[in-house]
Amino acid sequence: MIPKNHPRYESLILREKIKKANEEGYLADSGMIAHGRGEAFDYLIGEKTIATAHEAIKAAVATFILAKDPVISVNGNSVALAIDDIINLAKVLNGKIEINLFYRTKERVKIIKNLFEKKGTDVLGSDDDELLFIEDLESPRATASKNGIYSADLVLVSLEDGDRTEILVNSGKKVIAIDLNPLSRTAQMADITIVDNIIRTIPLMIEVANEFKEKDDKYLKMIIANFSNQENLKKSLESIKLK
Amino acid sequence: MIPKNHPRYESLILREKIKKANEEGYLADSGMIAHGRGEAFDYLIGEKTIATAHEAIKAAVATFILAKDPVISVNGNSVALAIDDIINLAKVLNGKIEINLFYRTKERVKIIKNLFEKKGTDVLGSDDDELLFIEDLESPRATASKNGIYSADLVLVSLEDGDRTEILVNSGKKVIAIDLNPLSRTAQMADITIVDNIIRTIPLMIEVANEFKEKDDKYLKMIIANFSNQENLKKSLESIKLK
Repeated sequence: MIPKNHPRYESLILREKIKKANEEGYLADSGMIAHGRGEAFDYLIGEKTIATAHEAIKAAVATFILAKDPVISVNGNSVALAIDDIINLAKVLNGKIEINLFYRTKERVKIIKNLFEKKGTDVLGSDDDELLFIEDLESPRATASKNGIYSADLVLVSLEDGDRTEILVNSGKKVIAIDLNPLSRTAQMADITIVDNIIRTIPLMIEVANEFKEKDDKYLKMIIANFSNQENLKKSLESIKLK
Repeated sequence: MIPKNHPRYESLILREKIKKANEEGYLADSGMIAHGRGEAFDYLIGEKTIATAHEAIKAAVATFILAKDPVISVNGNSVALAIDDIINLAKVLNGKIEINLFYRTKERVKIIKNLFEKKGTDVLGSDDDELLFIEDLESPRATASKNGIYSADLVLVSLEDGDRTEILVNSGKKVIAIDLNPLSRTAQMADITIVDNIIRTIPLMIEVANEFKEKDDKYLKMIIANFSNQENLKKSLESIKLK
């Protein structure tokens, strides 16, 4: 048990969730190392949602609402940290959820599918689905469910591998990324990058979604038009305080 | 197999070593997460030995040579990444090596001891030793071998936990830390902090040790007198480029 007054309490709780996911068998070893990188970057942005992330969240939610066929891509890390928030976000935004593992194994996919099913939520991307290769790239990194990411016009990824993001972007899909490292290839290639921890960002996205659902398309398009990802990333980097 | 022309080749090789250590059973899950934090900070300093680290290495080696009873403390991460370099450094500097695990288990200690024994190197800190508590602090974080860290005047730690470093410092021992995060409690509390990756730093320490062993005490004392850890850490932070 981690004492509640521990100065690193919140961070240690997340670390425990990641370790538990690894014990339960649905997180690759690389997922634990990736979590450590995330811890470092979250520490550097002060473990709070920075102003630029709030702006990116607005543009992301507006883009999501205007999308025809949006899909939320999940992996071991995002499920370990935020499964309930992900389910809620998908409901509010009428998005599908698709399992998408960089180190894909039948076993890991099955465990994650079960976690969602226990909560009454259908997910795509399991071995029960028809899986195709995006742009005919015969790579495990290009695998996508026919009725999910394969045919989606928008994909929300979090803690995603750079190669995978590149394939999504090159195939003409819009990509929204949640990534704590503003310098990562995923962060640099996505159309909209939210530099934040998913455990803080997804609840904020749900709030904004509830507000934006009442708005007309013109309003949402204006939000998007006023957003520059390049500018936002630059400012996010400046928010990383080293003192 | 990681292709040699992969842009992240060096970093991926280290990641494989860490995963292998985890599979072999001598690295705690937290060790993998800690490696991820290290990856992030190494990335931010440009994955090279920065000028301030070169200065800190000189002060560290001079301090080590002048110490009466210096000990190199090793853990799962440092053994996974740099066991051969650690053995060579101990030889050049006449230092003892002591196993020191934050998440200590009999099994992990035994595996690490065997790794050193296979290479013909004795290590302290195993369960065959007399283990005492530093300053009578009855905590696993204060455990030390009677003829090793317990009686040492200088301890070199790498990738060390903050609580453990605090205990060492409070007990009056000199502490040299190798830590990629200049903001970590270990980095902040040590007498000399080398902000670098151990895989680059230890070979450099060996080079400097071979050079400094020929020098007189006066020269070494001057090197130490001219070094300020606070100043060095400040400059290291400035070297972290975010662009």
